[in-house]
Amino acid sequence: MRGTVLYGPRDVRFEERDAPKIIEPTDAVIRIAATCVCGSDLWPYRGLQPINGPTPMGHEYCGFVEEVGSAVKSVKPGQFVVGSFATSDNTCPHCQYGYQSSCMHCEFMTRAQAPLLRVPLADGTLVSTPSVPSDDLVPSLLTTSDVLGTGWFAADAANVKPGSTVAVVGDGAVGLLGILSAKQMGAARIIAMSRHDKRQKLAREFGATDIVTERGENGVARIKDLTNGIGADSVLECVGTQESMMQAINSTRPGGYVGYVGVPHGVALNGEQLFFAHVHLHGGPAPVRRYLPELIKLVWDRKINPGKVFDMALPLDQVAEAYRAMDERRAVKTLLRP
Amino acid sequence: MRGTVLYGPRDVRFEERDAPKIIEPTDAVIRIAATCVCGSDLWPYRGLQPINGPTPMGHEYCGFVEEVGSAVKSVKPGQFVVGSFATSDNTCPHCQYGYQSSCMHCEFMTRAQAPLLRVPLADGTLVSTPSVPSDDLVPSLLTTSDVLGTGWFAADAANVKPGSTVAVVGDGAVGLLGILSAKQMGAARIIAMSRHDKRQKLAREFGATDIVTERGENGVARIKDLTNGIGADSVLECVGTQESMMQAINSTRPGGYVGYVGVPHGVALNGEQLFFAHVHLHGGPAPVRRYLPELIKLVWDRKINPGKVFDMALPLDQVAEAYRAMDERRAVKTLLRP
Repeated sequence: MRGTVLYGPRDVRFEERDAPKIIEPTDAVIRIAATCVCGSDLWPYRGLQPINGPTPMGHEYCGFVEEVGSAVKSVKPGQFVVGSFATSDNTCPHCQYGYQSSCMHCEFMTRAQAPLLRVPLADGTLVSTPSVPSDDLVPSLLTTSDVLGTGWFAADAANVKPGSTVAVVGDGAVGLLGILSAKQMGAARIIAMSRHDKRQKLAREFGATDIVTERGENGVARIKDLTNGIGADSVLECVGTQESMMQAINSTRPGGYVGYVGVPHGVALNGEQLFFAHVHLHGGPAPVRRYLPELIKLVWDRKINPGKVFDMALPLDQVAEAYRAMDERRAVKTLLRP
Repeated sequence: MRGTVLYGPRDVRFEERDAPKIIEPTDAVIRIAATCVCGSDLWPYRGLQPINGPTPMGHEYCGFVEEVGSAVKSVKPGQFVVGSFATSDNTCPHCQYGYQSSCMHCEFMTRAQAPLLRVPLADGTLVSTPSVPSDDLVPSLLTTSDVLGTGWFAADAANVKPGSTVAVVGDGAVGLLGILSAKQMGAARIIAMSRHDKRQKLAREFGATDIVTERGENGVARIKDLTNGIGADSVLECVGTQESMMQAINSTRPGGYVGYVGVPHGVALNGEQLFFAHVHLHGGPAPVRRYLPELIKLVWDRKINPGKVFDMALPLDQVAEAYRAMDERRAVKTLLRP
């Protein structure tokens, strides 16, 4: 089998690797129907996050169960499944509270940009679809594995309610699906912060009512203008830089909510500034497993079409081009099929 | 009239000043029945927060309305009132959302350690008691002005619910009243972090079920031990240092809540650490005005006795000794009567 390995900055190779096998009785091996490149993959790809030698890549996945370990009870060979980028037993106290991405036995997935994938803790990690999906549903089902689940968590963490005024910082796939999520949750007004025509268009399709092209302090001033000087009720931070984080905090009204899902890189929050901002702050790795049943159903019933974030599709063996296209912002997100 | 002025580190003087007068039609002047020294007064007293020349002190107050401006409608001379340490019009959008301490016209009070006090925005800041209180209620009523309101906000921001497991970082008056607040909100278990016998005793009187004397990483390990390795549902941060903030965050379970009310001094939060901690974070200057009616009623009906935090009482002209006693931790909190 060939799989994706990152060797160093901008050096992605699709090369021969051992095919995964059942190791623990709680494992499953799945045959990937579709996988993709995540915005968070670009941090090490750009050399902004160190790696320890050649690193197998990929953590978004859906496909057919090929084989299960002897202890697996909830999925069986032949079923179509989606799993979270973070494995979970779904029974420990943290899982019971709905924070499966902080499961006491959590592992962050990797190796999914390959035709076959071993998924630990299969019972607690994978959710099967009602039956084999039609092919056009596969991209949207794939998004529930991470990018939609993460945008959804951002909106949930930011307390989006019917009637809310929402701002979204970041026009990557997570930000765009944060817009879709806020719309589903009943937001009355959704302000997308984006300066890219194509992404603005998708933002509007997903439910954005306003576009702000300014950034930093000017971006904050624009949000204040648009909200009668009050600030937004809910702000979704979907980038992870110091600037984006402060933009999110400062765009929120006192008592409002910031949901942050961009993995922070070099972010330091000044305690005093945060204190007087008076906002609620919640975020972290999205507990995708909590949302999977609901999100799969929304996709299955064709209530949402998050698969639209894939504006490029390539055969898996062209994975290096998928990284390049996203790095150069030629693509929002690239779908890969083995 | 004589009032309290801080001249520099550990230099508090009670000296002649002009008596306050009505300046704006929305002002009231009140005759102080009782005031006190706040933990936050100790930062500049200790020279840990710079001051610009001689600074009149005091922001906790209750007493009798002496005079009102022509626009004041909700209180009248002779009434006994309590007000928040932060003034508010109680009508702007931030006030309407319950964040009166971020009122668009908010001023932080000072000058309350004096026999007479001008209170701006009297209609939106002051709340009157049902009638003139008996003298023994005055200390408890005074606490609603800041220290109880702040402990209450810490518990509210930390989402304390019936059955919650709560930890409280800080055994000053705010932390102790945070314990009382958590108890009122129905917490099943309240872990106080304190290494002072006298404060531990008061903590238990107010509802603490467990005492942890360890600090920092060892304190966190103790909280984890006491909660089966899970962490607390709600943690109240009532100090404001880097150590106390990290102690609070790391003692909280993933998905749990940190309510922080200690004014941060030199606190910087690492974005990545916060991200993976997976906690909810909320705090800031307590919107005391939101809670005043409820807290005054609890005191009035003798359901709570927060005035117990005053373990020293002095005539106002001995205010310098009140600061010394709190600085040296000889007193938890000192009541001052003109």
